[in-house]
Amino acid sequence: MTYDPTNIFGKILRGELPAHKVYEDDTALVMMDIFPQSRGHALVIPKAASRNLLDADPAALAAVIPLVQRVAKAAKTATGADGVRVAQFNEAAAGQTVFHLHFHIIPVYDGIALGTHAGGGRADDAELIALAKDIAAAL
Amino acid sequence: MTYDPTNIFGKILRGELPAHKVYEDDTALVMMDIFPQSRGHALVIPKAASRNLLDADPAALAAVIPLVQRVAKAAKTATGADGVRVAQFNEAAAGQTVFHLHFHIIPVYDGIALGTHAGGGRADDAELIALAKDIAAAL
Repeated sequence: MTYDPTNIFGKILRGELPAHKVYEDDTALVMMDIFPQSRGHALVIPKAASRNLLDADPAALAAVIPLVQRVAKAAKTATGADGVRVAQFNEAAAGQTVFHLHFHIIPVYDGIALGTHAGGGRADDAELIALAKDIAAAL
Repeated sequence: MTYDPTNIFGKILRGELPAHKVYEDDTALVMMDIFPQSRGHALVIPKAASRNLLDADPAALAAVIPLVQRVAKAAKTATGADGVRVAQFNEAAAGQTVFHLHFHIIPVYDGIALGTHAGGGRADDAELIALAKDIAAAL
């Protein structure tokens, strides 16, 4: 499997599509998932091109994992969640839908099932903008 | 939340409990999950003491993530899975049941739902021994 730069995250990284950005530096972009599994579901996307974890440069992984940690902590703080899941899917069978490496940061709340936040649909833009701001402030 | 060294992975790391080991070095242990979500479900456990990702040393995370990648690739190769999920849970609300940082490496097979491999129960030891050997050989 090879990397196809026309994927949607590739387009966002190149500024060809908009996103609710939380944070950006030379190596990674953090943004809100527009189809959130829970309130505050964010994505950490390394800028280095790889399809997923399987073909990633190990050095790029080592560089991005501290940011994954920072975003997990910030998302939990900003949302008041009771826990956080970090998930990373490789290939369609595993649930991968965009073929540029990304890490899901999913706040979890006692008594609220994942996937129910926006009824499985697209979240409200105003809410995502507010969440992006709150998580950025907690980073 | 603080680290409690009496957790089951702490005991395994100290050799006080057995495990189906795949790999071990100075910084991490890889073993089979005895309650697998799928055939080949492995765990990567950094030896550095932390409750989960939230309180981990960023340098320890950077050191272990290339091993997470290696195990994901090896588990996919050894099992012939169609994809791989990497998951890491923080706090009970998020599904964490053992409070020592660990990464789940979960091979996924087309048409087979996660959680059904051992009916949600404990896997057969002979099968886990064989899988540990196969994944180690693919590392």
